[in-house]
Amino acid sequence: MTQQSPQPLPDSLLDPARAPTLAGVERAAAKVAALLPRTPLLPLEADGVTLWCKAECLQPIGSFKIRGAWNRLTDLSPEQATAGVVGVSSGNHAQGVAWAAKRLGIKATIVMPSNAPAMKLAATRMLGAEVVLYDRVTESRDAVAAKLLDENGGTLVHAYGDPWVIEGQGTVGIEAGAQLAARGIDGPDKVVACCGGGGLSAGLALACPDAEIVAVEPEGWDDLTRSLAAGEILSVEDLSYPTECDALQTPQTWPINFAVLQARGVRGVVVTREEVRHAMRVVFEKLHLVVEPGGAAALAAVLAGKVAPGAATLVTLSGGNVDPQKYAEILAGY
Amino acid sequence: MTQQSPQPLPDSLLDPARAPTLAGVERAAAKVAALLPRTPLLPLEADGVTLWCKAECLQPIGSFKIRGAWNRLTDLSPEQATAGVVGVSSGNHAQGVAWAAKRLGIKATIVMPSNAPAMKLAATRMLGAEVVLYDRVTESRDAVAAKLLDENGGTLVHAYGDPWVIEGQGTVGIEAGAQLAARGIDGPDKVVACCGGGGLSAGLALACPDAEIVAVEPEGWDDLTRSLAAGEILSVEDLSYPTECDALQTPQTWPINFAVLQARGVRGVVVTREEVRHAMRVVFEKLHLVVEPGGAAALAAVLAGKVAPGAATLVTLSGGNVDPQKYAEILAGY
Repeated sequence: MTQQSPQPLPDSLLDPARAPTLAGVERAAAKVAALLPRTPLLPLEADGVTLWCKAECLQPIGSFKIRGAWNRLTDLSPEQATAGVVGVSSGNHAQGVAWAAKRLGIKATIVMPSNAPAMKLAATRMLGAEVVLYDRVTESRDAVAAKLLDENGGTLVHAYGDPWVIEGQGTVGIEAGAQLAARGIDGPDKVVACCGGGGLSAGLALACPDAEIVAVEPEGWDDLTRSLAAGEILSVEDLSYPTECDALQTPQTWPINFAVLQARGVRGVVVTREEVRHAMRVVFEKLHLVVEPGGAAALAAVLAGKVAPGAATLVTLSGGNVDPQKYAEILAGY
Repeated sequence: MTQQSPQPLPDSLLDPARAPTLAGVERAAAKVAALLPRTPLLPLEADGVTLWCKAECLQPIGSFKIRGAWNRLTDLSPEQATAGVVGVSSGNHAQGVAWAAKRLGIKATIVMPSNAPAMKLAATRMLGAEVVLYDRVTESRDAVAAKLLDENGGTLVHAYGDPWVIEGQGTVGIEAGAQLAARGIDGPDKVVACCGGGGLSAGLALACPDAEIVAVEPEGWDDLTRSLAAGEILSVEDLSYPTECDALQTPQTWPINFAVLQARGVRGVVVTREEVRHAMRVVFEKLHLVVEPGGAAALAAVLAGKVAPGAATLVTLSGGNVDPQKYAEILAGY
């Protein structure tokens, strides 16, 4: 098992290195509320228990990533905004950065894996961003981004290892808490999050200080689950391990995320391809939402009995950007 | 072309025969608001125009039919509630009546076509209703319902020819108007509705007195379009005409609906199977919602250029109850 520590970040990626906070999440929530309507919090009955599903697939870009990107880009200085931003993403953060950049008139360059879903690549380009491709198995996306920043300048908007991004993603929890309260329910007391690098999980850990947080990863890409169990940051062993959860394919978490998750005693859970496919089908049938594989991981963990629901369980349906052929294959397979 | 007038209703179906009103819609809107969160009003960019899509597929039963059923059943007298209700429906109204009846502790019997989607039959039974099947081509569902009522008593909750039901469905328009206002937009100035018997269209015509209303029907089931053009109620000619829009397969509208629609100068528009399938795919890709064929008809008409959008166009995505195999077939066909 590879047990490397994370590479030290190049100076260009270090600015600024502050810890994300609950106050930061609350500030971000005000910015997001001024920009976007709340996504629905939909009840789903499962084995006699009501799960509260946050339908982030209904965001304008089809995932929660619009939150962190907006929070980051709206805090750039005028000089930073002029120099543009560089994002690294398997496709959802890409669209978040591209959407925010377009709205703010900022140039965006996004480093994306060459095997990202066609829909995600097309949508990112449609939003006006320049896309730079890399090979997910043989190249480091962070290294590609660092090279671009060294050559052309600009600000990195990392997909998860960034305090603004973490705080932005945490706004999911603030909204969900308000939506539960509107139904007369205290909570959430448990939060189950789809997890790649740990941006959303860390944000939710800050946003919901009284809840138990569970981060759900796909089989083969369980670095965070192993890291939290081991007490140190571990990496994905086999970067060619096949998964349909492209949005959750991150080689390792970053210290800024790990610090938050470890301090809160967050644990990781791993789901299989079939568990994810089943959850996608349940969401289709019961909620009439399209979720991508990576967006169904959290629900998959609950439905598979790997996470026991609490009294008021928040489940993130984090994204819906799946190619139609893939989705048809998954639905038809039943 | 068959040009029969509607059959006179049996006495059992006549109570009460009052005209639906805007005041009734507003009263229903208060009841619905106390029961259910608003469904999202999602912007969809199409050829540079923003359409406002009311995501009724996100209702607990997967369609707007919960509104009319709730409005009707909550106005039953205690004696009527004890005697139970009988509904006639291709599947969505069935679930609306069953859901409301279960919640209110009322016995529900639903007359459904034997070829209704498996998902709709199963969901109606899951909600505790008794299902009585009929043959869509050779039997009249109204006659089957009338026989049940004559034999066992109870109150008919018709799928569209009922003032409470019309007023309940109209609450879609009240909600949408409030949601547009929250975004600083006057409107809607145009309303495009998926149309079977004309319950939703008539409700929207009452709810949005200043808007142009367009009722969209599927090819072969265009009785209302022809009726509105002719100024008299006409029937579907060929009850075996194939369509994927099972929710919109109604042989003819009822006088109570026709009166409202005619008074408002509503016009009908007809869409093809391929236009509907294209709209379902657009909703999948851009909004990440699952809509059934009948729930995509209104959008299909706009995307096909058959209805010109207004300044603030409300489009109903009226339901999402489609069998997964059918949905997979439609997505994979591209």
